[in-house]
This record gives sequence, C-alpha cells and structure tokens, in this order.
Amino acid sequence: MDETVQVAVHLDEADPARMRMALNNMANLCAHYAQAGQAVAVELVANGPGLALLRADLSPLADRVAELAAGGVRFSACANTLRGISRDEGTAPVLLPAARIVPSGVVRLIELQRAGWAYLRP
Amino acid sequence: MDETVQVAVHLDEADPARMRMALNNMANLCAHYAQAGQAVAVELVANGPGLALLRADLSPLADRVAELAAGGVRFSACANTLRGISRDEGTAPVLLPAARIVPSGVVRLIELQRAGWAYLRP
Amino acid sequence: MDETVQVAVHLDEADPARMRMALNNMANLCAHYAQAGQAVAVELVANGPGLALLRADLSPLADRVAELAAGGVRFSACANTLRGISRDEGTAPVLLPAARIVPSGVVRLIELQRAGWAYLRP
Repeated sequence: MDETVQVAVHLDEADPARMRMALNNMANLCAHYAQAGQAVAVELVANGPGLALLRADLSPLADRVAELAAGGVRFSACANTLRGISRDEGTAPVLLPAARIVPSGVVRLIELQRAGWAYLRP
Repeated sequence: MDETVQVAVHLDEADPARMRMALNNMANLCAHYAQAGQAVAVELVANGPGLALLRADLSPLADRVAELAAGGVRFSACANTLRGISRDEGTAPVLLPAARIVPSGVVRLIELQRAGWAYLRP
Repeated sequence: MDETVQVAVHLDEADPARMRMALNNMANLCAHYAQAGQAVAVELVANGPGLALLRADLSPLADRVAELAAGGVRFSACANTLRGISRDEGTAPVLLPAARIVPSGVVRLIELQRAGWAYLRP
C-alpha cells in the first residue's frame, strides 16, 4: 500500500488518562508506520473540554504534545471552543506552540473523513 | 464540493454534559455548512443510556432537541433499547416529538456509514 | 446489498457497563444481519484499559465473550497494551481463549477502516 495512511484522532474530554491514551495511540501509530516504511499523517482534533490538552496554562502533557508535534503529528484546536472559553474566562487562552487553530473541531473531523481519513475516538 | 455532507452522531451515554456536547457539535455543524451554502444532513442516533436524551420524562435538553429538529437534524431512538426499558419499567417510555424510532441504533450507525456518512462520537 | 457488512468495535475503557454495551451492540448487529440473511463480520479491538475484557483473570464478561466468539465475532487484544501490562505486573496476563493478539490495537482499527470496515465506538 503506497498511499499515505491518514488518521484523525478526536479528543473532547479533559480527563488526563484519556488525553494520555490519545497521545499513546498516536505514538503507536507513528512508530508502527515508520517501522513499516509507510507514510502516515496523524492529526488530533481537540474540542470542548478536550481543548485543555492544548492550553499552555492547563495541559498536563505539554512535553508529550511537543514531542509528537516534532515527529509530525498535527494538533488542531477548535475555534468555537476557544471563543466559549474566552467568553467565560474574559480572556483568550494561550495555546501550546504546537497547536494550530481550526474554525470548528467537528467540521474538521468531518472534512478529514470525507477526504478519506480514518477516525479514532480514544 | 456539491454533494450533501452527511454526519451520523452517536450518543450512548446518559451524562448531560455529553448530551450537551453532542447537541453543540450538531449545532456547530449545521451553522458552518449553512454559512458555507453547503447542504448537510445530520442525524443523532441514541441507544443504551443515551436514549434518555429523547425521553419526554427524562430529557434534560428537550428544548434544544426541538430546536435542532426544527432546523433539520434527525433524532433516532433505538428500538432495542426501548424494548429493554419497557421490560425493566413495565411500560414503554414516551419519546420527544422529534424522536423517530429505528429498529437498531447500531445497525443504523453502520448503515449510514456504509452509505457514506461520516461518524462522530462525542 | 450482497457484500459482507464489516464492523470494527473499539473498546479502550475498563468500565464494565461500557464493556457490556460493546457486547450488546455486537450481539444486536449479529442478530439483525442474521435475520436479514446478510453476511456480517464483527471484530472487537481492545486496547488500553479495555483489554481487561479479554483477560482471563479480570474479565467480568468472559461467558458473553465466549458466546459471541462462538457466533463468529472476533476479539483482538493489543500487543502494545499487553507489553505494558507485562512490564507493570512482572508477568504476561493470560487471555480468554477467544482472544487473539494483534500487534497494535489502533493500527488494527485503522487498517480495518482502510479496508472498508465501519467503526463503532460504544
């Protein structure tokens, strides 16, 4: 199989154990396909309470996010969720350097699936 | 992309925060694609404990279900789950007006995916 | 529709209620498609805390796993998770007879989706 393997990972919970699971899943995917010599694209989409993974002030796993991002994993933060946080807290949260903002987390997950990405919900 | 975007949303938990997240996800999807002038079909499939969202006596979010249904979102209640509730409680639960019954929630989710729908599990 | 219906079920939680839900989902799928005279392939992939379902010493639902396996459902245990357990507990866990080991649970879920399987995350 020559085509790039594409995987969207959905995180919408703030539970650190679930965050760790999502990151472990992505690390395992990257390791497997690297060893197999198979190109892979992995993107985590964080929305709702899951966005805490990507907040500089709250993330319990900032080092692992940075490490995975250095290995090519993309981290997408939902702008709808960010707007809600800004409204509730009175200020926009600072995100980890690895995070990039997408207009809507769920739209992103749908568009990726429509483009042939597999979906994983740890 | 001219084709209708089709999204199946799976709810099988009774946690009101999770229900609210599923409804928010669908509202965001509808708003995004409406603004983009893109046709969209969104269907929530509730089974197991998630069916509480669609029960007239238990739903914590009946108004939001009605509002989304008025905007075109479909709400499907699993008949297998309803049978279990009827057996346990001695009477069939009354559903919200927006709910329609499907023979099996999980079969519905599979058939939608087989028909090209994306899958979202908030 | 003549093609075999193919469904991958993802279990990564140790909560017995969630395990029971996953098994109920698969039983419903099998019953529906058997009645419809439609060939179906169903595989549960257990990783992380969900692997407890397939451990001989911990599974709260060993009888139901055996029953579903006798009906054709496949049960896959993640070797990455098994390695972690072996390291933590000092010994490799014994699995239920129905379980077979796959190198990586998440890779298995991705490969099944790439081969056209639907994905269900109870």
